Amino acid sequence: MEYTNKHYEEVRKAQQKAYAPYSGFKVGAYLITKDGRTFHGANVENAAYPSCICAERSALVAAISEGYRPGDFESITITVDSPSLASPCGPCRQVLKELCDDEMPVYMTNQTGEMRASTVDQLLPYGFSGKDL
Amino acid sequence: MEYTNKHYEEVRKAQQKAYAPYSGFKVGAYLITKDGRTFHGANVENAAYPSCICAERSALVAAISEGYRPGDFESITITVDSPSLASPCGPCRQVLKELCDDEMPVYMTNQTGEMRASTVDQLLPYGFSGKDL
Amino acid sequence: MEYTNKHYEEVRKAQQKAYAPYSGFKVGAYLITKDGRTFHGANVENAAYPSCICAERSALVAAISEGYRPGDFESITITVDSPSLASPCGPCRQVLKELCDDEMPVYMTNQTGEMRASTVDQLLPYGFSGKDL
Amino acid sequence: MEYTNKHYEEVRKAQQKAYAPYSGFKVGAYLITKDGRTFHGANVENAAYPSCICAERSALVAAISEGYRPGDFESITITVDSPSLASPCGPCRQVLKELCDDEMPVYMTNQTGEMRASTVDQLLPYGFSGKDL
Repeated sequence: MEYTNKHYEEVRKAQQKAYAPYSGFKVGAYLITKDGRTFHGANVENAAYPSCICAERSALVAAISEGYRPGDFESITITVDSPSLASPCGPCRQVLKELCDDEMPVYMTNQTGEMRASTVDQLLPYGFSGKDL
Repeated sequence: MEYTNKHYEEVRKAQQKAYAPYSGFKVGAYLITKDGRTFHGANVENAAYPSCICAERSALVAAISEGYRPGDFESITITVDSPSLASPCGPCRQVLKELCDDEMPVYMTNQTGEMRASTVDQLLPYGFSGKDL
Repeated sequence: MEYTNKHYEEVRKAQQKAYAPYSGFKVGAYLITKDGRTFHGANVENAAYPSCICAERSALVAAISEGYRPGDFESITITVDSPSLASPCGPCRQVLKELCDDEMPVYMTNQTGEMRASTVDQLLPYGFSGKDL
Repeated sequence: MEYTNKHYEEVRKAQQKAYAPYSGFKVGAYLITKDGRTFHGANVENAAYPSCICAERSALVAAISEGYRPGDFESITITVDSPSLASPCGPCRQVLKELCDDEMPVYMTNQTGEMRASTVDQLLPYGFSGKDL
């Protein structure tokens, strides 16, 4: 399925649920499964910064907790309130690597609706996975 | 609301959704909001162990991503496939501290249905919070 | 060994090495091994907040990387630039639980030199450990 | 400075200090500063897997805790006990992005001494940094 306005509308709704009192930097994620279910994800901050959790991971663990398994995902779209295009942090890329197909699209958007498409594999080249253990 | 058999039945269902191919240690969480909504959480492991995410946090970030806010939670129940009673790890206690009332009950169960009740504050004494920043 | 002025002097030196451009909240740790070696630890922040690392863990992993093993530690002292006494976050308590004796003292200080002593076990009651796996 | 046998010898020494009782997967890191100081890093595991810390981060936070600052590093070499070449996990790439020059070499080796060179920027394309906040 191609990226559409619907992706952007939904990810902006997800972003509004962010709990970001420390950075003020609200992030949203919109995850679609191959069987058409959708999940919103928002960042969940913590006074102890290392315990913050990002929007991408929030959406992915919500889906796994509903019974979805690695490989069940079609795309993820992310957004921020900034002119910079959203970009997953390293930990989120590692979780995407574990749970999503290497070729799954990651749509990175910004506050004005611009979009750059990448893939899980492009975002974590030579990515560490279960094959390396 | 008191702890009941329903809590245990639900947390065991949540646990079945765990993705734990590395440890084989499946954990489930069952989160109830004050307005009666419930969330399942399961642990989501990763070949890169530091990128694993626990059941308790999975349930909590799913709830925040649906619009719930700190203080909206009534209780969390957790379980493991072991005779030991489930116990939240340090990072989960930090996230509970941020998002839940200090007196919120944490029900820790095991594979045979035993239960020990504690609270967020008891599990993280002198807990670090936004007041310390 | 009892807590002395030397502990406080050293932990304040450690704190000055903090890299905390995002929170401005500088934390220091001073770790002593049973054979008398000492390690400074400072918090190391990251633009992606979940990738921040705390002072306590910085000191502990530095010691392990020099060959020290779980149980080799005598005490840890921590400090902050605040009137609140420093308190380890949940993730740091989990790492202390793994690497230190349950009765090891944790000395929590503040900017004016007040101190509260606790232990690893008191800070993580019913702590999750390898025995629970 | 070019990659030499010395890098490999040192990173193999670092690896021997790994504390990896849960995965059995020992990782080593060898960090060199621009002014010629060197740091060993080893992975430090935890019964609660999300609280594990990798070799690369162990070396980097040790250096910051000794007073080094972002940009002070010349190269990092990593190794594993596997025929696969070591590859930094996502969280380590995020910490490298924060603390090291984009063009800093990352030397990835394996148990037989093979090596692949990359850079911080190549390992985290479109990397999230303080400029995006």
